[in-house]
Parts: sequence; C-alpha cells; structure tokens
Amino acid sequence: MDTPFALACPVPITQHKTIVLGHGSGGRLTAQLVRDFFLPAFDNPALRKLDDQAVLEVGPSRIALTTDAFVVTPLFFPGGDIGRLAVNGTVNDLAMAGARPLFLSAAFIMEEGLPLEDLARITQSMAAAALEAGVQIVTGDTKVVNRGSADKLFITTAGIGLVPDGVSISASNAKPGDVILVSGTIGDHGMAVWSQREGLEFEGAIFSDTAPLNALVEAMTAAGEVHTLRDPTRGGLGTSLCEIAAASAAGIEIDANAVPVREDVKAACETLGMDPLFVANEGKLVAMVSESSAPAVLDAMRTLPQGRAACIIGRVVASHPGMAVLKTEIGGSRILDLPFVEQLPRIC
Amino acid sequence: MDTPFALACPVPITQHKTIVLGHGSGGRLTAQLVRDFFLPAFDNPALRKLDDQAVLEVGPSRIALTTDAFVVTPLFFPGGDIGRLAVNGTVNDLAMAGARPLFLSAAFIMEEGLPLEDLARITQSMAAAALEAGVQIVTGDTKVVNRGSADKLFITTAGIGLVPDGVSISASNAKPGDVILVSGTIGDHGMAVWSQREGLEFEGAIFSDTAPLNALVEAMTAAGEVHTLRDPTRGGLGTSLCEIAAASAAGIEIDANAVPVREDVKAACETLGMDPLFVANEGKLVAMVSESSAPAVLDAMRTLPQGRAACIIGRVVASHPGMAVLKTEIGGSRILDLPFVEQLPRIC
Repeated sequence: MDTPFALACPVPITQHKTIVLGHGSGGRLTAQLVRDFFLPAFDNPALRKLDDQAVLEVGPSRIALTTDAFVVTPLFFPGGDIGRLAVNGTVNDLAMAGARPLFLSAAFIMEEGLPLEDLARITQSMAAAALEAGVQIVTGDTKVVNRGSADKLFITTAGIGLVPDGVSISASNAKPGDVILVSGTIGDHGMAVWSQREGLEFEGAIFSDTAPLNALVEAMTAAGEVHTLRDPTRGGLGTSLCEIAAASAAGIEIDANAVPVREDVKAACETLGMDPLFVANEGKLVAMVSESSAPAVLDAMRTLPQGRAACIIGRVVASHPGMAVLKTEIGGSRILDLPFVEQLPRIC
Repeated sequence: MDTPFALACPVPITQHKTIVLGHGSGGRLTAQLVRDFFLPAFDNPALRKLDDQAVLEVGPSRIALTTDAFVVTPLFFPGGDIGRLAVNGTVNDLAMAGARPLFLSAAFIMEEGLPLEDLARITQSMAAAALEAGVQIVTGDTKVVNRGSADKLFITTAGIGLVPDGVSISASNAKPGDVILVSGTIGDHGMAVWSQREGLEFEGAIFSDTAPLNALVEAMTAAGEVHTLRDPTRGGLGTSLCEIAAASAAGIEIDANAVPVREDVKAACETLGMDPLFVANEGKLVAMVSESSAPAVLDAMRTLPQGRAACIIGRVVASHPGMAVLKTEIGGSRILDLPFVEQLPRIC
C-alpha cells in the first residue's frame, strides 16, 4: 500500500522472516511492519492517516481514540515509572489531536512473581498521573502469565477524548510558512531510562520528562492557529519531523543550534554515540503553527510549566516536500531519516 | 473498599507478597487484586460498577469503553486464534452493555523471533473478525521485546461503542422474577484451547466458540426487556452468575439439568476434573430478562446463528440475595462460589 508515509521514507527491501527488535524502534522497520501487515489488513480512513490517534464521528461528537503498550525496563527510573508513562503517553496522544482527554482504560499483563509492592507503587503513580491530567481510569483488565513468559509487567492504556468544534490538528496539516516550536529540551526521557538501566555514572542526574501535555495544548489552541502537534516519543524529534514532512507533503527545516538539549543529555548521548534528535521524550511536543500565531502561542506556552523552555526551532517550507532537513552547527545541511535499528530498546 | 462484589464473595485473608497465577483466574484472587489495588487507586463511579465496560457521558452521547489483554497460548487453536479472540472479546464486552460496537484499537507486544507469517495470519484473522462484527480497527501500537521477555505475542484491544437511548443493561440490574437465558452450550472455548495445548486425544473434536455477539444483543434488546448481559469468558458461567448475584444483590437459581454442555466437552471436563460451569466461553452470553419478555427474547435469539441453542436455565429470586445456587441433577442444591485457583491459565 502506498501511503504518503511509505512514499517519503522509502524502506529498503529487507526480508525478515521473524520479528526483530528494530520492528519496535518506531523507525523504518516499524513503518514497514505497519505498511505491510496492519494497514492492508485493517484498512480504513482513520487508520490510513497514521496519526497517533484516530478522530472518529460518534453520534454528533468527534471522539479521539488512542492506545499504547508500555514495556519499559526497568519499571522505575529517575523521574517516573511505567505507570506514570502509561497514563501520560495516552493522555498526550489524545492531546496531540487537540482533544480534551477524558477517560482511560488500563490492561495489565503481569508475570508471576511480580512483587505486589511494586504493583501498588505503580497503580498509585497512575492514579496521581490521572489526577494531574484530569482524566479517569474507568475500566481495565488483568492477566497473569507464568514466570518467564513476560518481563515483570506490561501496561496497555487506551483513551478517549472529545475534540472541540473547530479544532483540526493532524500530522498532515503542516503548511509552508508555519513556524516550528518545541516545548522544551529533548532526549531527557530516553537518556534517563538508559542510564538507570545500564547503571551509568551520570545516573540520577538525568530525569525523565514524563508529563501530561493536555493543559499546554489547551493554552496553545486558545492562543493561536495550531496546525500540527506531535509528542516525539519513541524515535525522538527526528522521527516525528520525518513523519510530519511525509504526511503533510511539506518540507521541514530545523536549525540545529536552536534545538534545546540539556548539557548532561548531550554529554550522555556523545558517550553512547547517540543523536539526541532520535532519543525519546515523554513530556515534550513539537508544533507547527501559523506564522502570525507563533508569538502568541509561544507566550501562552511559556506561562505553563510544561512549556517554560518553549522555543522556535525551524520552519515548514515549500521546497523539498516530504523531507526534513537539519541546518547543522557548522552551516551544512543534513537530511533527517528514520532510524533503521533500535537505538534504545524498551524505553517506553 | 467495600464493594457489593467484595461483600458477597468474601475473600479469605491470604497474604501473597507477589503475583501468582491465581491473580489472573478471574476468580477470588482477581477480585481481591481489583479490590485492594485498582479500585482504591483509581476510584471513580464508572469503575466502581465493576462491569466489563464503562458507560460514559461524552458530549450528548453515552459511550461504552472497554479493554482486554489477550495472552492465550497457543496462538492458534481449533476454531480461532489470538487475533479473532482479541476482536470478539472487546466487541462482546461492548455489546454486553447494549452498546453498538464501533471502533477498536489494537496494541501488539511481540517477542523477538515471532514468525512474520504468524503475524500475517493473525492480522488477517482480526480483519475478518472486525468485518464480521461490523467494527473498524482504527488505531494501534506495536512494541517488540527481546527474546524471553514475552511469550510470542500479546494483543490488547480496546473499543468504543454507542449506547442507544433508553438502553440500560448492567450486572447490577438483575431483578427477582427475571428469567435467566444462555445463548448456547458452555465450556467449548476453554476445553478447545486446553486440549490443543496439551495435545489431548479429544484434540480437534472441540472447537472454540469465539464469535461476535453484537447482532444477537441487538435482536434481544429489540425483542424485549433485557436487564443484564454477561459473556462468561474467563471464570465461566459460574463466575458470571456469582458476580451478577453480588452486583444486583439478588438471588440466582440455576437448574443444572437445563445448562447446555456438549457431550465431548462434558467428557473432557470429567477427564480433567473440571467443572464446565467454570470453563471459559468466548461466544456465549447469559441474560437476565423480564419474565414477560422471555418468550419473545428467546425466539429472537433462536433466529440467529449465535443463539440457535438458546434456552432458559433459571431464575432471579428474592431469597438468598447475593448468592447463586445450582439445583443439581439429583435434586440437591450447591452454592456457586468464585474459583480460588487458576483452573486453566492463559486461555484468553
């Protein structure tokens, strides 16, 4: 199936016969899996948009529906845990359609032997996150598998939200001339989990940014004309930019100097040979807003804790449609492309 | 937290420090887990009802939301596979609130090494099931975990449906005088999976009953006054009856002679020392309907393939509220109680 996504990010012919870690990277192999297996089987207009949520007509309302499975390891990391991640991830996927998140479901797959103390900490953390985001966890499921058939705990959340009248936000809505904003520093979450897992020496210094973004989105849509929103989770900001360029058939130009990265995250990425542009965030968003709205939207973002460090990082352009380009620190240009392999498995 | 559920099915004080297989049984330990961990943490009116779905006011509409995680092993079994189960399970949980199922999400947790051929068969099976039920799979997620961190494939579906005006169906709505119907034979699914897994000699003779029940429910609600619906999956018919008796604070009386069980299922259960009343179904429902409606509802059920073998199995009574009682073949009475241990792990 030729989707804009598949067209703009051509997938090399790699004939895997089994699932490999790269299929979970959020990059090329994930896109190939979606294109070859899920889209042809389930084909429908909502799915075809390849947004992180579906916006659906239900009765007289527009309802956003989304789901995410969380398999992060370890379960607890600086700044959060799998439960907080599972609530915020689904809240944010709803918010990225401009929807007001309302209700969540939560399904738990637990390995025999999971300490009940850990489960208690995690459910309490989910409750706190739900309260913070203003959503209710209204239904759920629990399954237990025998020891060795899962890794401690996986949580899948789904959620619904109401899309206000007049709001139309999608990865396919970016328009040449739009200003590109990010809400804060990038790469924090991925490096926090990675350093905790590996016991690296900068452990503890870097905290996950996991946070609900719905209040931020409400402030932004009230302040100006927002065309596109994404929370650059797995695959990072770079992957989100590639996907938006492809979905909108627009060019994207980013100024490397303008992309905010904490010094310790930058140092950790350098040590590990990783590019912060492709490291996961769990409490950041990238937005394409109309040029005239940009100052007001930016001001609105900066009044809220989740947007205090918001800044302009680039432009949507008419040239090189479908392609995201980074203007590098030394004045060069680098075409951004989806990662092929899994840089950081199981960070969400 | 004292819920009607916890009151009527008292849980003995067993202090587990870790998750055990019984926590996934759908029986006592699952109830204890829900009561001790999930209800106190997430407490809200919709969750407190302990129905298999939440019915929510969203704008001017009543929307049902539900989720289920599927961890069945093996992935393929006579009559179905994990994909068909994942679609039908969520469709049916929506239908049991009288909702018209509309849209599903699907999240895949895949173990490195899962054959892509298996994934293709499963996604195609899900697509066929969605078509049959008249729903669309509109959004999803894929995660990959390293070899040994999951068992091949887990699928979590969530779904939303629209509850028509005037429809109010809940496990708490059963009323003394109601007639209790089942839509067909019980225990088929559990024994089909179990026999496939164990390679027992009756393998192949018993097929899972996995099927969508939304058309059946539509016919039933059009024909008469339906108070309560449950699809007796994990934990079987016996568990559903215990839960309904507790939630409705009503007595339930079932005639053992009237409960339809296939001869081969009965024989298999006898061999394994299991009670078909507590074996999972995936395409059957139990209904409490007003006495005056019962003949019309039964007639309507029998016109559809999923209800061809529908029959009356008992009554809701005013005596022994909160308790489900089986009138045995030899004229005695047996109080039904939630199973404590996991009879058949991972059958859904």
